[in-house]
Amino acid sequence: MGWWKVEGVAYKPLDDADFDSRSDQMYISPDVKAPRMAGVLVKIFAWFVEVPVLGMLLVYFVKRKNFINKFVTEARLEESPMFIPSHSFHHDFEEKQVKNVDHDSSPSKRVKEAVDCLPWDTRNSTEGTEVGFRHWTVLDYARAYSSGDITPTMVAERFIASVKESDGSNLEMSFFVSCDASDILKQAKESTLRYKKGEQISVLDGVLVAVKDEIDCLPYPTTGGTKWLQRFRQCSRDACCVERLRQCGAILVGKTNMHELGAGTSGINPHYGATRNPYNRVRISGGSSSGSAAVVAAGLCPVALGVDGGGSVRLPAALCGIVGFKPTFGRIPHSGVIPLNWTLGMVGVLAATVEDAFIVYTAISGQLPSEEPITSPRRLSFPMLNSTTGITDIRLAKYEKWFNDCSSDIRLCCSEALLRLCENYNWKTVEVSIPDIEAMRLAHYLTMGTECIASLSSYLGKINYSELGWDVRVALGLYGAFSGKDYVMAQKMRNRQKQIHRRIFEKADVIVVPTTGVTAYPILDDALQTGELDYINGAALVQYQIAGNFLGLPAVTVPVGYDKDGLPIGIQFIGKPWSEATLIHLAFAMQVLCRQDCRKPEVYYDLLNNN
Amino acid sequence: MGWWKVEGVAYKPLDDADFDSRSDQMYISPDVKAPRMAGVLVKIFAWFVEVPVLGMLLVYFVKRKNFINKFVTEARLEESPMFIPSHSFHHDFEEKQVKNVDHDSSPSKRVKEAVDCLPWDTRNSTEGTEVGFRHWTVLDYARAYSSGDITPTMVAERFIASVKESDGSNLEMSFFVSCDASDILKQAKESTLRYKKGEQISVLDGVLVAVKDEIDCLPYPTTGGTKWLQRFRQCSRDACCVERLRQCGAILVGKTNMHELGAGTSGINPHYGATRNPYNRVRISGGSSSGSAAVVAAGLCPVALGVDGGGSVRLPAALCGIVGFKPTFGRIPHSGVIPLNWTLGMVGVLAATVEDAFIVYTAISGQLPSEEPITSPRRLSFPMLNSTTGITDIRLAKYEKWFNDCSSDIRLCCSEALLRLCENYNWKTVEVSIPDIEAMRLAHYLTMGTECIASLSSYLGKINYSELGWDVRVALGLYGAFSGKDYVMAQKMRNRQKQIHRRIFEKADVIVVPTTGVTAYPILDDALQTGELDYINGAALVQYQIAGNFLGLPAVTVPVGYDKDGLPIGIQFIGKPWSEATLIHLAFAMQVLCRQDCRKPEVYYDLLNNN
Repeated sequence: MGWWKVEGVAYKPLDDADFDSRSDQMYISPDVKAPRMAGVLVKIFAWFVEVPVLGMLLVYFVKRKNFINKFVTEARLEESPMFIPSHSFHHDFEEKQVKNVDHDSSPSKRVKEAVDCLPWDTRNSTEGTEVGFRHWTVLDYARAYSSGDITPTMVAERFIASVKESDGSNLEMSFFVSCDASDILKQAKESTLRYKKGEQISVLDGVLVAVKDEIDCLPYPTTGGTKWLQRFRQCSRDACCVERLRQCGAILVGKTNMHELGAGTSGINPHYGATRNPYNRVRISGGSSSGSAAVVAAGLCPVALGVDGGGSVRLPAALCGIVGFKPTFGRIPHSGVIPLNWTLGMVGVLAATVEDAFIVYTAISGQLPSEEPITSPRRLSFPMLNSTTGITDIRLAKYEKWFNDCSSDIRLCCSEALLRLCENYNWKTVEVSIPDIEAMRLAHYLTMGTECIASLSSYLGKINYSELGWDVRVALGLYGAFSGKDYVMAQKMRNRQKQIHRRIFEKADVIVVPTTGVTAYPILDDALQTGELDYINGAALVQYQIAGNFLGLPAVTVPVGYDKDGLPIGIQFIGKPWSEATLIHLAFAMQVLCRQDCRKPEVYYDLLNNN
Repeated sequence: MGWWKVEGVAYKPLDDADFDSRSDQMYISPDVKAPRMAGVLVKIFAWFVEVPVLGMLLVYFVKRKNFINKFVTEARLEESPMFIPSHSFHHDFEEKQVKNVDHDSSPSKRVKEAVDCLPWDTRNSTEGTEVGFRHWTVLDYARAYSSGDITPTMVAERFIASVKESDGSNLEMSFFVSCDASDILKQAKESTLRYKKGEQISVLDGVLVAVKDEIDCLPYPTTGGTKWLQRFRQCSRDACCVERLRQCGAILVGKTNMHELGAGTSGINPHYGATRNPYNRVRISGGSSSGSAAVVAAGLCPVALGVDGGGSVRLPAALCGIVGFKPTFGRIPHSGVIPLNWTLGMVGVLAATVEDAFIVYTAISGQLPSEEPITSPRRLSFPMLNSTTGITDIRLAKYEKWFNDCSSDIRLCCSEALLRLCENYNWKTVEVSIPDIEAMRLAHYLTMGTECIASLSSYLGKINYSELGWDVRVALGLYGAFSGKDYVMAQKMRNRQKQIHRRIFEKADVIVVPTTGVTAYPILDDALQTGELDYINGAALVQYQIAGNFLGLPAVTVPVGYDKDGLPIGIQFIGKPWSEATLIHLAFAMQVLCRQDCRKPEVYYDLLNNN
């Protein structure tokens, strides 16, 4: 074997593998060697990477130092590649305590069925018995509009003023890429009229919804957080998920800021500003759906849409103290979303409460017939959140070493929340060992990068690279360096992990982990102009996200507390394929337990009371 | 745009594309710039390619000169990548004149049902009314065994002697990689006993079947045509298709020679010899299922199994004057086959007659439940070949420019056969234009190469490269040079071509083309030791095969005549997904028309009459 060869891991056939907590499987923490780069450093590195031939060689050698070779591309894996995270739906898979709703019914009808599943105290929560801070919910808005005390137009006007204020030099929150006041007011006027006539379409009528700038939504261009993508890719109609929200009467309020091309997790965008965290404006909001998380946390919308290709919905939700929900791959149509990656990314919902995430999920779910080869079930299962009995028997898989591989504040907070949950509902945790989690993260990174570069390549030849952020220039240089073999090897790891997770789900109903390994870290000055490459913090933010994307599993994050600096912490439940109802039920149960500790964000707009 | 950039084709959205024969779509003939290399030339080239870094740069620049960049990897394609050639089965898709047979019935029961569909003259063809040469069929063997005139043991003994003779220095046919006389005689004895007791399992009982050395079949190792693969990959059980043949009583007679690792189309194997064409022993048999095609043509077996990843069943079948049948991707389980490529390769049947291909196809078909995400129909459709009416209305799509892009002998022979077929049955040809066929060939090549290198990479680090043929060393060097982006771009082309073919199949039931662009070309001396790189002849051999693999469509080749040198010519029908019954019916109709012109191969063994 020559000096240029890397010895890969020889993975044991899974029949021999042990998923028991006493297993001798070694847990490997994300071990990223790359230093943080921003400012002039990232510029120099990008320049090197982009030089023809020389750059190729540089990247080639950088890559060899990485664990990707050892754990993925040079590994020996018996499994066939699995290219799409598809899960056949088994008709014998039945969730407990659910109401089955026809997949093909109209969005507004589905929303009505969802609202019927909500508990009474949520539907009528003006009682104010809770001590913690509470964001306004979809039902709060619907009730306020129905009572006539307030109109969608009034809320829209307050929204427009608040966005203006948040963008001013005092705050520089950088929530939105684009936000058209006249378009918002036009929609609000129509909704107001419907309420006046008593013809409101659903509880979402007149509710403000923001959309990540990766999803088509008229009348806006879709920039993907860039300054140039809209020149090549026209936005001529709403994405399917947006269309369904409009059918429910929702008011689409604009395109939220995002990490450029989804190629990072900080939400620091050199073109549209760094989206700041409403709980602490010198901290990141997380990304890539940074704006969608931040606007919900700041009270500007009860819900927003994001896209989750590597935790991009869940991780900013956790950092901003809200709920992030990514359903099973294939559950929500992807049409009208920039295809930054085809086999990982999916629309997800960001909301202040689990109930609202559930409502919006029901509105936008349901596969289009054209979307082969994913086959989703022909029905949606709704959790009966209003049931007094609840789910009686839930087993939560916990991989101790992995669960604890995070900051001490997160570890304590999540452990304590999990304990409370299990005690309160008499649920059980099952100690498991999940092999090769770090290998999955690396294989996911390789897959995401490769698909991103394939998606953009026809444009990249036509733009001036100075239009790109420096961090993205480096990222694209690295993405282009993976070989076809590397990509296929990553898909073998995908299949292996699918088999591993299938076995874990024989022992448990969900996997429970913290949502992120770190809380929102500071936005440093040198990152604002050039963007920032911080693969170490990046790995800590995505380390718990991967199964949701690489394996297409449904996952939800719920806020469970704050670290010593007052920054939000989330806990995540990862479910079996198509088990959204169980996840929502769990998340709701957790939310109820943690609700009294909720704190008000530093930057917050109360659109119902206008203060 | 820098000097190193290649301007890719911007493909029009398919809504604007025209599939009419009057379309202005430009037909592009395979344009391969690489010179033929064998002997010392291929050694030098392989050496360069394998030098670290330098080789990478060399391949990088070689690759840029190729059309792959222009038509695939740097192209602009709106389509999403399609990684697996899956076709949902539509319940409204009904073939005409078929008998539906349960997918889950036993192989021998399915074979019985198939035999019931055969016409009387085939079932009782000792009449000898035909003037052309006729290979013995499965039913000929079954009838002879049942009559007691001859036993499986007698046939097995003649077989063993014939193989020995064919391998002698006079002939050097190199049909088999391994062939165990005692194992064959043991199986034959058991079958003979069954016939004696009147307990034969099916018409396949006692019938000799050869298996390509890419498919697991005990007691043999599976070499893939190499000298080393069996060291790393144990063969511990029969492949599923082999197991099903055994369940029908078939005698597995050994592992046929193949192009090393399936990485070529000539069938020239430097380790096990060049499989010679029974119609002319100084010509190639074609590959990669070279031995399987040649043994059938030479009368050693009525049927053999091959694997078709890029025409590897159909093209050697055409070159050897027999029938080659590759069903829809997913129809035959792939378990127990070396995974040289996951998304293209599939077991296929080589047989002297259409009826025999049909019988073996029925025995081995039926997806395993574990094989997600391919979903095949839960039934098999059998053509009623014994029907006096036949199929009344068939439309055959013909793309004139493509059809004619072959040697003049092939063009004339296939045109004439097609004309006769249409006149005889009153079927119609539909003139169409199929865009971007050459781009599909290039995308397929890229896909096949990438998957091959991913499949083998964990072994390649452990072997001495001198164990590889020189042509394969160059091929592997090129395969490893494709980037992940390239691979994904090729899958976008796959999706585009799926859409294109879907539209063609709205106009027609099958596509008709010659099977190959050239007939069997000479085996040159310099190729025997080093192997041969002949991308020009290679492209001419595979140019009509690609839709069968890249899109997973079913396809069948039938011999229709001979060129001026007496070398066989085949015509190919490419069908809609899951339309195997229609294809078999068509192939059978063509066979009936061409049967009287069949010639006896130069190398032929008559195992029923022992002369």
